[in-house]
Amino acid sequence: MPKSSSSSSSSSSSHLTVVGSAALDTIETPHGRADDALGGSALFMGAAGSLFAPVHIVAIVGDDFPRLEIEFLRARGVDLTGLESVPGKTFRWHGRYYENMNRRDTLSVELGVFEGFNPRLPAAAAQAEILMLANIDPALQTNVLKQTVKPLLVVFDTMNHWITGSRPAIVRLLKNVDMALLNDEELHLLVGGKSTVDNAAKLLEMGPRYAVIKKGEHGAILFTRDQPPFLCPAFPINDPKDPTGAGDSFAGGMLGYLAATNDIGSYNLRRAVVYGTVVASFTVEAFGMKRLETLDADEIEERFRQFRAMVEF
Amino acid sequence: MPKSSSSSSSSSSSHLTVVGSAALDTIETPHGRADDALGGSALFMGAAGSLFAPVHIVAIVGDDFPRLEIEFLRARGVDLTGLESVPGKTFRWHGRYYENMNRRDTLSVELGVFEGFNPRLPAAAAQAEILMLANIDPALQTNVLKQTVKPLLVVFDTMNHWITGSRPAIVRLLKNVDMALLNDEELHLLVGGKSTVDNAAKLLEMGPRYAVIKKGEHGAILFTRDQPPFLCPAFPINDPKDPTGAGDSFAGGMLGYLAATNDIGSYNLRRAVVYGTVVASFTVEAFGMKRLETLDADEIEERFRQFRAMVEF
Repeated sequence: MPKSSSSSSSSSSSHLTVVGSAALDTIETPHGRADDALGGSALFMGAAGSLFAPVHIVAIVGDDFPRLEIEFLRARGVDLTGLESVPGKTFRWHGRYYENMNRRDTLSVELGVFEGFNPRLPAAAAQAEILMLANIDPALQTNVLKQTVKPLLVVFDTMNHWITGSRPAIVRLLKNVDMALLNDEELHLLVGGKSTVDNAAKLLEMGPRYAVIKKGEHGAILFTRDQPPFLCPAFPINDPKDPTGAGDSFAGGMLGYLAATNDIGSYNLRRAVVYGTVVASFTVEAFGMKRLETLDADEIEERFRQFRAMVEF
Repeated sequence: MPKSSSSSSSSSSSHLTVVGSAALDTIETPHGRADDALGGSALFMGAAGSLFAPVHIVAIVGDDFPRLEIEFLRARGVDLTGLESVPGKTFRWHGRYYENMNRRDTLSVELGVFEGFNPRLPAAAAQAEILMLANIDPALQTNVLKQTVKPLLVVFDTMNHWITGSRPAIVRLLKNVDMALLNDEELHLLVGGKSTVDNAAKLLEMGPRYAVIKKGEHGAILFTRDQPPFLCPAFPINDPKDPTGAGDSFAGGMLGYLAATNDIGSYNLRRAVVYGTVVASFTVEAFGMKRLETLDADEIEERFRQFRAMVEF
């Protein structure tokens, strides 16, 4: 149920707040290169989530940030009040993908103003029903959570760096999180079990009611405490150009759909995972978030139908 | 529709002939070790396929082969007339899996009598409706095909070694094959396209009407010429012990189901892929083919139902 292109944001939707990075990415893949492309978890999640529901972005950029390039977000009704702008350089990442694009090397990282990021939620963002804590220092994630007004769904992401270096903070935070959103490798590093199934069970014992395990081009698995897992393959793309942001747009699409439908029952969670999968499949068709900029509700619905036809038996 | 444990082989089933290797595998995984375990593509496919339909195995073993250990196949009605026994040593493989078991090193290979394998199909095997040409020299696969009596479905597997070294023979053979069964990497090496979707389309232009692309623990995708692809995730296992033979038991289960149902329509092909997935998921729960030895129809049906509950949305 993405927003149709003709309707304004539904007032019956829940709101989604995403707290994470805003970045300028230089990306090399076998299919080309993009310089200083819009990137970062908060922007990807915001671009994807706003296709479904009202989104508040909380992130930080430097005074070199090309504000005009995110006008498409404002036009979609994204609240950018929490996008703090400070003197200095925007977070920059430069990566190069291998031939099959499952692997990449990070060539350089310049944290810039992101190094001093201390997220403050504007009032509207603090009241959102769904809070996405994208990958930042778990101490900051914890501070963000304290600023909220009883969200219905708190979602947590992280990365190997924090799992290794800040495990105690993550373990404490997980007790107050409803959903963990990790990739296979992060999950294994965090709990170290026998298999994805075993790892997910252990993760759910640590606090979250739901775990969504991302497997890149191989899809995702949703684990809950009382239902069978939901196995969601990725939507296969004929000519992928750039995987950057696929995982974050998956998250944004999934949570945007949950916000739009106001329903976190297990059946709707499965549909949300599929919508996330569909949005991510568009993301990889162009560099950075170019495809997300033009994507519309009809395209999403059409691909949702195509996906169903690819999994029925 | 696996055979129920009480029924004998149905006379309305098609027959499946598998031509490939019989081996003694020494396997090391993080969960243990097995020495001289039954292995090889033909035996795994036969063990899996015979859970559904009458199977003929065509392979070669040395005089050191422990014939008693395959009595369970005979008890299931497998025709072992084509299991040639000659003086010398049986094909031996010794492998060691890494921690996550997606990767393995081959520590040693002793071809033994397999080096002189020149498959001869007994009359009953030559008349089977479904012929599985497992991974052997494509020149031998071509010879096998010439010995058959107009099979309804010819299925082809190979490996990187032959794709690199015997490409012209493979290209010729593919023109006379109905279904190619390859893993992602083999597919890419063979056609070198932009993605799995693109590669599969190119493969289908080379002859086969169907392509089943195996992705290990990430499942499989069925491609046909005129229907959407079928995305089939793997059945997630809590405590996998040994991935050896998973791909071959997938193939055996899939083709056994097709033989049992006598139907290669696109809907039934999808169900066959799921049955293959289910059988493979049992295989990895124990070393070698130990789990396949005790597996029965009820267990398969139960897991088929569980699988459906894991993919519905």
